[in-house]
Amino acid sequence: MTASKEILLSAYPVGMPTSDTFTIRDGAPAKAPAGGVALKLLWLSVDPYLRGRMSQAKSYAQPFEPGKPIYSGGVAEVTESDNPKFPVGSLVMGIMNWAHEQGHSGEGLTKLDPALGWGKTLSPSLSVGALGMPGFTAWVGLNIHGRPVKGETIVVSAATGAVGSMVCQMAKRKGLRVVGVAGGAEKCAYAVEVLGCDACVDHKDPELKAKLREACPNGVDIYFENVAGVTFDAVFPLLNDFSRIPVCGMISVYNATQAPEGPDRFPGFWRAVLTKRISVRGFIVFDHAEKQGEFLKEIAPLVAAGEITTRETVTEGLENAPAAFLSLMTGSNFGKAVVKVV
Amino acid sequence: MTASKEILLSAYPVGMPTSDTFTIRDGAPAKAPAGGVALKLLWLSVDPYLRGRMSQAKSYAQPFEPGKPIYSGGVAEVTESDNPKFPVGSLVMGIMNWAHEQGHSGEGLTKLDPALGWGKTLSPSLSVGALGMPGFTAWVGLNIHGRPVKGETIVVSAATGAVGSMVCQMAKRKGLRVVGVAGGAEKCAYAVEVLGCDACVDHKDPELKAKLREACPNGVDIYFENVAGVTFDAVFPLLNDFSRIPVCGMISVYNATQAPEGPDRFPGFWRAVLTKRISVRGFIVFDHAEKQGEFLKEIAPLVAAGEITTRETVTEGLENAPAAFLSLMTGSNFGKAVVKVV
Repeated sequence: MTASKEILLSAYPVGMPTSDTFTIRDGAPAKAPAGGVALKLLWLSVDPYLRGRMSQAKSYAQPFEPGKPIYSGGVAEVTESDNPKFPVGSLVMGIMNWAHEQGHSGEGLTKLDPALGWGKTLSPSLSVGALGMPGFTAWVGLNIHGRPVKGETIVVSAATGAVGSMVCQMAKRKGLRVVGVAGGAEKCAYAVEVLGCDACVDHKDPELKAKLREACPNGVDIYFENVAGVTFDAVFPLLNDFSRIPVCGMISVYNATQAPEGPDRFPGFWRAVLTKRISVRGFIVFDHAEKQGEFLKEIAPLVAAGEITTRETVTEGLENAPAAFLSLMTGSNFGKAVVKVV
Repeated sequence: MTASKEILLSAYPVGMPTSDTFTIRDGAPAKAPAGGVALKLLWLSVDPYLRGRMSQAKSYAQPFEPGKPIYSGGVAEVTESDNPKFPVGSLVMGIMNWAHEQGHSGEGLTKLDPALGWGKTLSPSLSVGALGMPGFTAWVGLNIHGRPVKGETIVVSAATGAVGSMVCQMAKRKGLRVVGVAGGAEKCAYAVEVLGCDACVDHKDPELKAKLREACPNGVDIYFENVAGVTFDAVFPLLNDFSRIPVCGMISVYNATQAPEGPDRFPGFWRAVLTKRISVRGFIVFDHAEKQGEFLKEIAPLVAAGEITTRETVTEGLENAPAAFLSLMTGSNFGKAVVKVV
């Protein structure tokens, strides 16, 4: 095993983060605190939303602190335990520091239930991906806030991403016309051929607006918002009366440092909300924890059976986690980004 | 009785309508069409939303046609009937032309039920005001889209208007902290002293933002949007997590002819929707017709008993209806604007 390391936030980045945003240093050996556990980290999730924690701007989450560890969803093996819920040798998932070893209070940890097939039909990494926060986010946004009806049209931005790829597949199973938006021909082909989208439009295409209109002959009933920016602008005129916009993320504006120049799009948006009776709802998956069991019961068997496809981009080595995160910010990743720690 | 007149749209106004927007001419004597009725108009409702029909821009309603009559909510007496639901002499409300006499198919007409006290404890004009479309709009927006919880704070824009005054009183009865926004000291005093608002802030006050913040020490849980503009900007930073914005109107932008200059407020708004999990819902009362009975059953007795206060600005004479409408566009009215036709 490599020497134990941990990764800290150096300082809040202004605009796009860089490798200087992170500091790697030697970690201390971990001990289980009273009532808690000591963990050996196996998998880490890297997600665009972490950008929001690298800032003191008001957000739904506490910001990271400069000089303190970065943390995100992870899977670990319990190496020492003062809590009977998490025996030594069991697999747990939850929010974990970017560190090979760590003591953990146990709060928020979930033991991966071997009966579901974890470690056998289901890779533990899926507990931070298709069957973890991103998959659950897709399920909550689509079902609770999107309120899909068979025969409707949904546009899914970042369609091949960790959340979007699950939205596409779940919406298709519910009988919707599913139109993806993704960056580049390879991702678009994947959206149609693997995820089952009825069409997929490249957001880098200068004809984005016209092509999206063509792909949505009956307008748009649900816009699953992951990106904002030009994709939103292309969807906006296509929104139908009573359409719903679950607002899940907006990667295109995370790195903005000031309000962009005009014209001011807000009044036109506001007018459309009224005249088309649009529902907009920002949501964070953590607000819906009580539904997680229902989600797993419905979706885990479909993933285990291969009826829902998952794709991971695996980066090996904890020390490469910052690079894995940075590649999310520029859209060069494909599939759920995870780090295989060991 | 005066000679029978009718009022037409001359042409679509660009920007603020003027008296030239309307044409008054002699009307023809009315006959009941087959299955319909002939009506003698008694009261007319004039409302800001009519501005939306004076335009071919996409909206929730068909636009008026140049050279054809203006129409809005009205109350009339049936003078000739080929429909047993509406006997001669009964009072009916519905969408009516701005004309002393008119034939009407009967579609969308509602007979005012004498058992509720119409013509006795309830003036027929209330059927186009506190107990008609504006009151029902207030009830739908507050209850269905606002989802009020005792102890929360609601900000009501256009607080002394036909809709706002009902929202304020209904919200107060539900145990909310109610903060009005209105134009000028007289309206603000009315909001507090008569409507029961806990505070009211003048939107013309240069200290609007600071005063609204002071009036909402626990932030804002519901913003009942009637106006947009500076009022929205003052409320926006005060919105709490999980706040709701029923979007009912936006009088400040109805007369805009192009997207205003920047900065572009949309990305900042969108980010707040996500991080604060805000719900936004545009709504039109006509989409909720099935709830009208429930509304009347709850609110009519309170109005008849004086527990809910109503205020009307009565303009006398059909020929003065255009002036009554124009005064709505500049905010100089106070209370529900109605025209007493005869």
